[in-house]
This record gives sequence, structure tokens and C-alpha cells, in this order.
Amino acid sequence: VARLGENRWGKTSVRVSKVHRGSGGDAFSDLTVDIALRGAVEAAFTQGDNAGVIPTDTMKNTVYALAEERLGSDVESFASALAHHLQARDGVHGADVTVAQRRWERVTPTGFVGGSSERRIARVDAEDGSDRTWAGIEGLVVLKTTGSSFRDFPRDALTTLPDKDDRILATTVSARWRYGVVPADTTSTWERVRTVLIDRFFGDWSASVQHQGWMMGRAVLDEVLEITDIEFRLPNQHHLDLDLRPLGVDGSGTVFLPVSEPFGDIRLSVER
Amino acid sequence: VARLGENRWGKTSVRVSKVHRGSGGDAFSDLTVDIALRGAVEAAFTQGDNAGVIPTDTMKNTVYALAEERLGSDVESFASALAHHLQARDGVHGADVTVAQRRWERVTPTGFVGGSSERRIARVDAEDGSDRTWAGIEGLVVLKTTGSSFRDFPRDALTTLPDKDDRILATTVSARWRYGVVPADTTSTWERVRTVLIDRFFGDWSASVQHQGWMMGRAVLDEVLEITDIEFRLPNQHHLDLDLRPLGVDGSGTVFLPVSEPFGDIRLSVER
Amino acid sequence: VARLGENRWGKTSVRVSKVHRGSGGDAFSDLTVDIALRGAVEAAFTQGDNAGVIPTDTMKNTVYALAEERLGSDVESFASALAHHLQARDGVHGADVTVAQRRWERVTPTGFVGGSSERRIARVDAEDGSDRTWAGIEGLVVLKTTGSSFRDFPRDALTTLPDKDDRILATTVSARWRYGVVPADTTSTWERVRTVLIDRFFGDWSASVQHQGWMMGRAVLDEVLEITDIEFRLPNQHHLDLDLRPLGVDGSGTVFLPVSEPFGDIRLSVER
Amino acid sequence: VARLGENRWGKTSVRVSKVHRGSGGDAFSDLTVDIALRGAVEAAFTQGDNAGVIPTDTMKNTVYALAEERLGSDVESFASALAHHLQARDGVHGADVTVAQRRWERVTPTGFVGGSSERRIARVDAEDGSDRTWAGIEGLVVLKTTGSSFRDFPRDALTTLPDKDDRILATTVSARWRYGVVPADTTSTWERVRTVLIDRFFGDWSASVQHQGWMMGRAVLDEVLEITDIEFRLPNQHHLDLDLRPLGVDGSGTVFLPVSEPFGDIRLSVER
Repeated sequence: VARLGENRWGKTSVRVSKVHRGSGGDAFSDLTVDIALRGAVEAAFTQGDNAGVIPTDTMKNTVYALAEERLGSDVESFASALAHHLQARDGVHGADVTVAQRRWERVTPTGFVGGSSERRIARVDAEDGSDRTWAGIEGLVVLKTTGSSFRDFPRDALTTLPDKDDRILATTVSARWRYGVVPADTTSTWERVRTVLIDRFFGDWSASVQHQGWMMGRAVLDEVLEITDIEFRLPNQHHLDLDLRPLGVDGSGTVFLPVSEPFGDIRLSVER
Repeated sequence: VARLGENRWGKTSVRVSKVHRGSGGDAFSDLTVDIALRGAVEAAFTQGDNAGVIPTDTMKNTVYALAEERLGSDVESFASALAHHLQARDGVHGADVTVAQRRWERVTPTGFVGGSSERRIARVDAEDGSDRTWAGIEGLVVLKTTGSSFRDFPRDALTTLPDKDDRILATTVSARWRYGVVPADTTSTWERVRTVLIDRFFGDWSASVQHQGWMMGRAVLDEVLEITDIEFRLPNQHHLDLDLRPLGVDGSGTVFLPVSEPFGDIRLSVER
Repeated sequence: VARLGENRWGKTSVRVSKVHRGSGGDAFSDLTVDIALRGAVEAAFTQGDNAGVIPTDTMKNTVYALAEERLGSDVESFASALAHHLQARDGVHGADVTVAQRRWERVTPTGFVGGSSERRIARVDAEDGSDRTWAGIEGLVVLKTTGSSFRDFPRDALTTLPDKDDRILATTVSARWRYGVVPADTTSTWERVRTVLIDRFFGDWSASVQHQGWMMGRAVLDEVLEITDIEFRLPNQHHLDLDLRPLGVDGSGTVFLPVSEPFGDIRLSVER
Repeated sequence: VARLGENRWGKTSVRVSKVHRGSGGDAFSDLTVDIALRGAVEAAFTQGDNAGVIPTDTMKNTVYALAEERLGSDVESFASALAHHLQARDGVHGADVTVAQRRWERVTPTGFVGGSSERRIARVDAEDGSDRTWAGIEGLVVLKTTGSSFRDFPRDALTTLPDKDDRILATTVSARWRYGVVPADTTSTWERVRTVLIDRFFGDWSASVQHQGWMMGRAVLDEVLEITDIEFRLPNQHHLDLDLRPLGVDGSGTVFLPVSEPFGDIRLSVER
């Protein structure tokens, strides 16, 4: 005869983000939460009786609701609040909660650079007598908690997106620029372009990713005369508004759902 | 002065799945759609004027609505319907739509095995005089379009999940079993376990992933006497119901949203 | 005061492949091995004394040597041989060896299709009045144990590669073909192209990946008249010869080192 | 009839690293190179004639040899040297070389922190009346160009590794520590632990990864009294010596081969 051994049930990779507004600047939390419960649920396995099985969907909702109410900079305290909330349910013996917080470095009061696999790119294509030379950057992860809107776009029967006057804007910058004349010091030129890209992303208010990208590209052409054109790929890495009303929670508009897919995908080049 | 070069905007990695019910068995489509538009949107970049910018969120909704109305086995035709729908919008010159269809092999009328990185595992831990031997499988991707419910679970203020009498059930089986006595032919034993796992996943109606896993484990112990216990990790790879009503579409209940994260995470062992 | 707690040392992700030649056809093993040892090595941590620390590089060599001598279809037996060999070393109390065998399905006597994330692609680019339509395949993993050479290439001072009259050839086929006229049944056409690609990869002897790709593309154009051209990307996924002589082992030429990077990268299109 | 369209051949993902020794501190280059050639090679495709096909293995060797001779901080110049060297070969019309340089930030004269997906971890396991609390770090990528040896280990017939008095040491730190008493300010405590880990990795000479890990763990216990124990996983991310002699190049001992797999895998815990 078979018998049930060790078991647990839970929800893995629940993502949630939160903006902590402050007078001296914002803080930003970007978390992935894993939950595993242990409890008196043997009948769920052996009989198909779900009377003790807290749905993993409810665990997800619990993360969202408690992110609104309890999430500050002390992530151990948030993990503890989650674990205690879930462990208090009938028939739950143990609640094991792990929170992983992605590293975001604040570089302006509302601007952040993310941990990333940033890479400097150099490309030379030599063809018969002539060379073409590009430099570039990949994996530059940036996010701002304010300074971008998206509104006044065309609507049809399938459009459900509301106008937003202000929103989180996050992207991973891929840029590739071509040198008409290769600069004497390519390394310092590359650092200069990187600085311009970051400064303009954080410094310029934008009406869209398209608009933001244009301003970044134009500024690079202004700053570095050797560059003839610059191409961007700018994924719009959405932090969606979470509607907490079905959970009976009054949302403050500071808790978001980061999603990996799908993403808006904006490409442009800026030329002289 | 700067000017705008080549540009496009779109939505990448829009996922959608659909069950095609049939008398001789179901078919199942699992798609990832990438859309890129070209159009008269220069002012969006240079002026922040969004009058011509079809939101990428609307492109996503368009995929969902047309999946209900137009998606059959001919994915080129679905790509074409999407491209023409979007290209007909004001100011759009070009609509480039790519559909990637994941391979699912039908093995029962409603059961499918997915393309995967399936691996056979062997583990021996030799400690001073004695050995322990495990075998296992990882990356066995299975999905059934019917034959699983989830209902009668406990509810609290944060529970929004409805009862479901029937639903898609999909998982990637990881199982590891221990041999009390190592069988003479480990390869044929492994094939036998794999067959039992697949047969029971497709053959047994279940009230939950937990219930499904238990029945799979019990059957393995019944079938292979050398096995003393078996451990499972069974992620619940959700295909969520898509609510098409906000899009003005009467849903037939056959179009779903596959999500990678978060996922339900069920672990159990079954012992003698 | 601090004291050492649980510890182990080992080598993770040691890859090795082996061809098992047979009269009725070849078998092929593609393994990734993880090794962890436990032993009397406290002084290595606390004093920097390596007298008991079997190098992880030696563990890797042990995998290679025993793959030559002991690896057959029974991977549990290979894991056991490794564990016992290592556990017999002075000061080793426990040797924990896990072998993961990738799934390769034999489809001809010397041809194999690998577990994969195979996807069917459909692309439509609608531009003002006209459409262009492509279909494609990605993630089709194939390997043959014979039937490809590479020799008589140009040599310079930096060329160390020997001529090979026969070698393992493995690739992951990405192909994209354009339809001049979209066929009535795109699904059966796609299956037909897939069959031609597989048949020609396994059926035609080739002098290089380039040569193999050309024959595959030419055959597709011969078989499906609606196709105007086909583009390939064919990475050469090397299985390098392992030189076992430094290990004192007489190699039989059947054990190989699969490497993920770098890889040969061949692209071509075939047109009418 | 079929004819050959656009085509190219090359080597993708050639990895190489180099230490640039300097009086004020070292610089470190960590590159991945992609090469694609275009040339008069139609017969290779259509006839299997390799007379013009520079082997991709030779391209790889060319990267290694030129890394020794030509690689400095100006990666565009290195890309250009590679492109010109290859384009000068008979029958090559175009050489397209892309170099991607991973970001390493120098934090001591010989110590570097890599671009990473660093994450802060908090875990609470609540079981009936009691809690256990852990904090941790994952994805902390560190490398030093000197300050680690590995020698005087046991040798057997399968040991080919030479003793090294000094070597590059690189790892991605995963650490998890348990709090006996949860500190009042978990965020500043976490930052303190991170600082200790980095300081000790760069500050302490070590005889092995094991030795390095022990010193890091012991220092954390010394510094933060609330911590009862700390567990590490420290992969040894090898930068192998490249033997350039078969290429006719006198190596200076500063060019290395970074490899992703296999890797040494060291785990330990340090307790009070």
C-alpha cells in the first residue's frame, strides 16, 4: 500500500513592485515571492478533498494585498507578515515564505539603474577596402517612478487601456551607434554616450517610449559629433496597475504588477 | 539637426492558447505572437503626439479577440487576419506579424506531450560501505484539455478564484524515485515508469494537481516493486480564462492565457 | 568562535557524449554529470591545507576516462562506477554522482532527433496593398553519428584543426521560407518541409555544414513549388574529440566533448 | 534550378579574458566575440569544395592569438584588428566582427564586481508557534586577478592540473544566513554583511575556494552577532590558461579562456 510522504503546496514567482514616495526621493521595491505551505491536507492528495487546500491563487492575492499594507524597506518583516497571515489559516502547520528583492540603485530622486548584464559592444565590418564601425550598449536597465505619460492615442472597439498622465517607465536599453570617424578614445566616448542616455532617460519627461527614445538619440548626436546615427531597441517593461478592490483593499496606487511578457517593443533610429 | 530614421512599434511575446474541440479528439494551439507596425507616426517620436500610436495594449487585445474568431490550425491565416486587421487602421502602412506555435504531440484524444528538454536522471550516493540509487525524469511536459477540476476549497476575503468543474491541466513533471533494489535493466524500468506517469496523467480524472500527483505516484509503486518511494515536483502551468467581454466578444470558453509566472508549485512524495 | 558545518566539493555540469556503434545502428549517449564529495577536508577550509582536496579538475577527467571504459546504456551503472571510483580515494567519505541524460530519439540507424523546443513559425508582412508570407521552423535538433566530413580547407599559421573524414554532425535547424503563393493547406505543407529537412540531413553525406544546408534547401525547393526561397541558420554544435592519452587511457574514438560555446555559425539562403 | 543566395560563415560566442597588469592596479577585459565572413565560397555550398572555407576553429584561434598581441582597453581597435586579419585571407570579401565586453567595476586595485542580477533574499519559515528567519544574497559576481593559489593537492593517474601559486579567482556568491535574533534594522545589517563578504574576498589571500569561503563566513559571524550560521555556494568560475604555443605565439600568461561549464562547486556552512 502507498502512503503520502512529505508534501507542500504553494505559489512560486509571484512578482510585485511598490513605489515608496518620499520627500527626498522615492524608494522602489521589486520583489519575487515564493510561498510553500505545510498542513493537514492528506485528503487532498489521497481523496481529492480540497477542504483544506488554500488555493495558490489566494496566496498570490495575499502577496498583493499585504504589499499594499505592509511592504516597506524591511523585506524580512514583509516575509514575516505573509508567513503569519498564511500560517493562521485553519489546518496550516507551516508557512515558508521567501522574498527575493532585485537590486535597483537610485541615481536620481526618482530614477533607478537595475542590476543587469550590461555589455559594451564594438563592431567592425571590413569590406574590401573600407570599414564601418559601430559601438553600442546592451542590458542597461533603467526605471523611473515618474516623468512619463501615455494618453491621447487612437481608440477602437478593442482598446481598453486608460489614459495615464504619469506612470512608471522601465526599459532595458539596447543602442548601437555608428562612427563616421572613429574617435581617438573610444572608451571615454562610450562612457560619454552612456551618461547621456541615462541623463536623458531620467531628466526628460516623455509622452511615450517613442518620445523618450527620440530625445535620448537626439542628445547623443548633439554630444558626440563622430556619431552619424544611433539605433535603439527599447522594450516597454510594464509595471501594471493592480486593482485591489476585488480584494477589499483600498489601493494607494503604489503597488504594481511587473510582467515579463508581453512587452511593448519600440525601435527607432535617429540620424543626422 | 537630427531626423527620425527607420522605426516601428509593436507588442512582442503575446501568448495565447486555444482548444479546438472535435468529435475525434481535441486539437490544441499554443502561440506566441509578435507584432510590429510601421506608419505615419513621426510626430509621436519628435513631438510626443500620440494621435497615430495604436497602443501596444490594443495589439494584445486584438490577438485575443481574433484568436476567438479566427484561429484554426492554419496559423498563416491567423497571422494574415491579424496583419490585415491592424494594417487597416488609419496611418498604418505596414503590419508585420509573426506567430510561433509550440509543438504539442497529441497522444490521447485530449492529451498532449510538449516539446521539451526531457532528461533521464540517475543518481548514486555512495557513503562508506553503502549505496543509495535514484532514477528520475525531468522536463516531461504534459497537458490535457479536460479531466481535471478544482473546487470546494476554503475561501477567505482574499479568495477570488471561482470553482472549476473542468479545466486545462498542464505541468512539467519532475520525478525522482529511489530503488530499494536496483533493477537488472534500468533502462526498460525507466521507460516503464515514464509510461505509467503519462498514462495516469492522461487517464485519471483529478480534483487537483495534488490528487493527480498522488495517483501517478501510487501507480508507479504498484507497477515497479523495486521502487521504495517517489518524489514529485509538479508546477501548475496555468492557462487562465480570458475574459473577452470588455472587448465586445462573446467568448466560447476555448481561448486561454498561458502564463509563465507565477505558478502553483506542488510537491509530494509517495512511499510504501 | 567559528566552526565548519556541512560542506561538500565537486564539479557540476561535466558534459560528455559517446557513440555506441552497433550492427543494427548506433546508440548515442549525451550526459551532463554533477559530482559532490564529502570527506575529511576540514583543514582545507580552516587552514588552507589541500592535502585531502581531490581537484575538481580530476573529477572531470575521471568522468572522461570512465566514459571510455564504463559507459553503456545503463546510466545508473555509470553513476555507480564514478561514485565508487571517487569514494575509494583517501579521506573521501561520500561521493554523490548525478547523471542527466538528454533525450535523443533514433530516427535512422545513425540519425537522432533531440528533445527540443521546436516551434512552427508563420509570418505575414502586410504592406499597403500586398502581403508577403513566410513559414518556418525553429528548434529542430538533429545529430548524426556519421555521414559528414570536413577536410581540404585552407591552412595558415593559426590553423590547428585536423582534417576529418567522418565526424558527428549536430545542429539546431532554424529555417524560414517564403511562399510565392500561399498553399491551400499550410499545415500539411509545413509537415512536408519538415520531413524533407530531416530526410536530407540524415540521408545526404556532406563535406561541411554549408554543403549539408545547401542540399537541404535545394530539396525543399524541389519538393514544394510554392516556395520561392529558404533561409537557414545552422549552428555547428561541436562534439570535440577528447584526447584521453594524458589520462593514460587508450581512446576508442567514441567519447566526445560536447561544447555549447563557441559554435560554428553558418547562414545561407537558397533561391530559385 | 536552385541557386545560392546570401550566405556567411563564422564563429559565435568565442570567449576570452585578459588581465592588463598596471602599477596603479589591474584592468580586466572579459569579451565574447562573434565573427562572420563573406567570401567566394559558393563551391563549398554547392560542391562540397572547402578550398576557400577558413575553418571557424581557425577564427577562434585568431581571437586567442590577437587577444595576446592586440587587445587593450580600446575594443573597437581589437575588433578592427580581427576584421582586417581575416579579411586579408584569400577569397574573403567581408569580415564582420562584433565584440561584447562584460561590465566589471574595479573596486580594489585587483578586485572587480561584475554586472549581475544581484538579489537580496529574506526568508521566514513560520511553524506552529515559532519562526525561523534567514537573509541572503544571490548573484554577487566577484573576480580578483591575484590573491589565490591552488597547490599541494593529492594526485592520481587522472590528475593533470598543475599547481598554481597565483591565479584568477572568480565566483558568484550565494549566501544565506540565519538570524538567531532578527536585527532591528535588517537593511543596514544586510549591507554590512555584503560589505564584509566583498572585503574578505578581495582582502584575504586564499589557498582554495574552500579557504576563501571559510574566511568570508568567519568574518560575517565576527561582525554580526545576531547571525547563528551562514551557508555558501561558491561556484569556481574558471578562467583557464590558454596555451598559445601551438599557434606560434609566446604567451605572456595574461590571456585566459573563461568557461561556463563545467565549474567547481563548493558548498560550506560556518557556524558558531
